[in-house]
Amino acid sequence: MASDSKRAKLTTEQRETTLAPLTAAGWTTVTDRDAIYKEYLFKNFNQAFGFMTRVAMQAEKMDHHPEWFNVYNKVQITLSSHDVGGLSERDIRLANFIETASKSVTDQ
Amino acid sequence: MASDSKRAKLTTEQRETTLAPLTAAGWTTVTDRDAIYKEYLFKNFNQAFGFMTRVAMQAEKMDHHPEWFNVYNKVQITLSSHDVGGLSERDIRLANFIETASKSVTDQ
Repeated sequence: MASDSKRAKLTTEQRETTLAPLTAAGWTTVTDRDAIYKEYLFKNFNQAFGFMTRVAMQAEKMDHHPEWFNVYNKVQITLSSHDVGGLSERDIRLANFIETASKSVTDQ
Repeated sequence: MASDSKRAKLTTEQRETTLAPLTAAGWTTVTDRDAIYKEYLFKNFNQAFGFMTRVAMQAEKMDHHPEWFNVYNKVQITLSSHDVGGLSERDIRLANFIETASKSVTDQ
């Protein structure tokens, strides 16, 4: 796995540099597993599901999928890489995309 | 609320007649609240999210939304009517739509 950095778990150094901006944006580390989590609140269901659709298409493209819960305007997202049993670079990339997508939806 | 049957909680008689076919299809009643639940497993994320999109558009049309969790090919759905604090006719209608939508997606 070490030969493919995208598939490997994040190193301590990578965590410090890549997680900091996400933590500043409201992402938190999950206590009982190596994962990150954020809750988004939108104006209504239409906006929440529009956001989810953008994320879904990116997730499919990356072949890296979120664990997520939705009710009405609320979307709770957990990211982790099941194949490496923890956070990988793909989680960081997807989280950054999710941040951008959430802003693009709420700016409308 | 009783003047608008769609907005009222299901009566005991309505529960017996309308819940039976859903129970037969794998829906269960939730133990700690007046709600129904079903887990769907699809071939992959693409199929699961295709299904969710069909349900989302119907939910928006009905102005009645599910509580749902997705990870990859799995979709777990809970239905309840928050405004009446339990199951209403809208939950039954949405559950029946969801059944049809799940079949249409897996038949492809």
